[in-house]
Amino acid sequence: MQRIYKISNPVIITVAMTGAIPRKKDCPGPLVKTSEQIEEIHKSFEAGASLAHIHVRNPDESPSSDPDLYAIVQAGIQKHCPGIIVQFLTRGRGRDQAARGGMLFHRPDMASLATGSVNFPNGIYENPPDFVDGLASEMLKYETKPEIEIFDLAMLYNAANLVERGLLKAPVHIQFVMGIPNAMPARCSILEFLISELKTVMPDATWTAADVARHQLTVNEWTLELGGHIRT
Amino acid sequence: MQRIYKISNPVIITVAMTGAIPRKKDCPGPLVKTSEQIEEIHKSFEAGASLAHIHVRNPDESPSSDPDLYAIVQAGIQKHCPGIIVQFLTRGRGRDQAARGGMLFHRPDMASLATGSVNFPNGIYENPPDFVDGLASEMLKYETKPEIEIFDLAMLYNAANLVERGLLKAPVHIQFVMGIPNAMPARCSILEFLISELKTVMPDATWTAADVARHQLTVNEWTLELGGHIRT
Ligand SMILES: [Zn+2]
Ligand SMILES: [Zn+2]
Ligand SMILES: [Zn+2]
Ligand SMILES: [Zn+2]
Repeated sequence: MQRIYKISNPVIITVAMTGAIPRKKDCPGPLVKTSEQIEEIHKSFEAGASLAHIHVRNPDESPSSDPDLYAIVQAGIQKHCPGIIVQFLTRGRGRDQAARGGMLFHRPDMASLATGSVNFPNGIYENPPDFVDGLASEMLKYETKPEIEIFDLAMLYNAANLVERGLLKAPVHIQFVMGIPNAMPARCSILEFLISELKTVMPDATWTAADVARHQLTVNEWTLELGGHIRT
Repeated sequence: MQRIYKISNPVIITVAMTGAIPRKKDCPGPLVKTSEQIEEIHKSFEAGASLAHIHVRNPDESPSSDPDLYAIVQAGIQKHCPGIIVQFLTRGRGRDQAARGGMLFHRPDMASLATGSVNFPNGIYENPPDFVDGLASEMLKYETKPEIEIFDLAMLYNAANLVERGLLKAPVHIQFVMGIPNAMPARCSILEFLISELKTVMPDATWTAADVARHQLTVNEWTLELGGHIRT
């Protein structure tokens, strides 16, 4: 899960341990036990990772919103990996909308915030306007820095609109997520356009680009070319 | 509602009589009675319009899925406006998903088909993947030509995917819809990018660009510059 790049600019290498879609039977990636997650993140930390990107699972491997699970991983990481940035994922297809931000009172350093709705492989990834506003407000309240997740183009302008309305603090940090079927595909032309628009509507923003599973390496290469940060 | 453009290429000028959002109390545009719609379309037909874009309303002015109302307007237009292309709108925020394609058995020449989900001003415009597949299949069955409505970027690639899977017949006709709050804004840079991507993924497609209410004229100007058709 850790790749080494020889580049001149300093970049943030993110560790994302538990993807939201695959279950253990599909691929060996996702770690269900919090102890496994903590140990994996610790290994990546020792290899140079500076940010841990966490979503947790129920014992049946389904995505979980349980604040206690988030707190256990957060505490373990903070103990074993001093200085690492802890980021909570608020995604969760199949998770109750109201519960998705329910762990923010643990005040993670960062948390993900998708600023719109889009189709995913088997349904809608639902982030209606009032839900987005509410999650952004919670993050302001707990002084958690949002990682804005952009799954489709409109979400970029929605993020700029949140800044204008005082619900996001500039400079924001953006993650472009590509390669999810029915959402934005992993195309270099799209990433170039997103960055060009980002520089126009939120010139002070930082950004990363992530791909789901298959195309990760390719998107990382584009990211380096275009001057962003990396996520493994 | 009718504007005259001096241009060299022939274009299709569309008539859209009843917008899906505003009610009569908000603006004088929407026509609730089918007789009003037919008469307005007839006027535009005499002024040169070649395509009538229809969605109907309940007596309380809310968007309707009633197949009978669609049939009344369809019959009236076909009688008064020989040769005009009749297009049914399958949109309808607040309309039951299952009912949204329920009027297609009237075999309109065209019908709208949004190929994904996106936020609208007050909620999600819901077009989950299986719903999109189902609506596309119905249009194939009734030999209705879809007008693919693109409210956000991913929908463009979803349309190409429907062509690949045999659920849409190439060449497809695309309408880019811009300016709805929380969906794609009305930006020239976006329209240029959409067209560039369209030419790559579906080079034989035809296209128009529509804006919601406020920015209509501006988008029409871009459309002419970039070689598409017009909608009033
Ligand atoms: Zn993840
Ligand atoms: Zn350890
Ligand atoms: Zn309309
Ligand atoms: Zn008449």
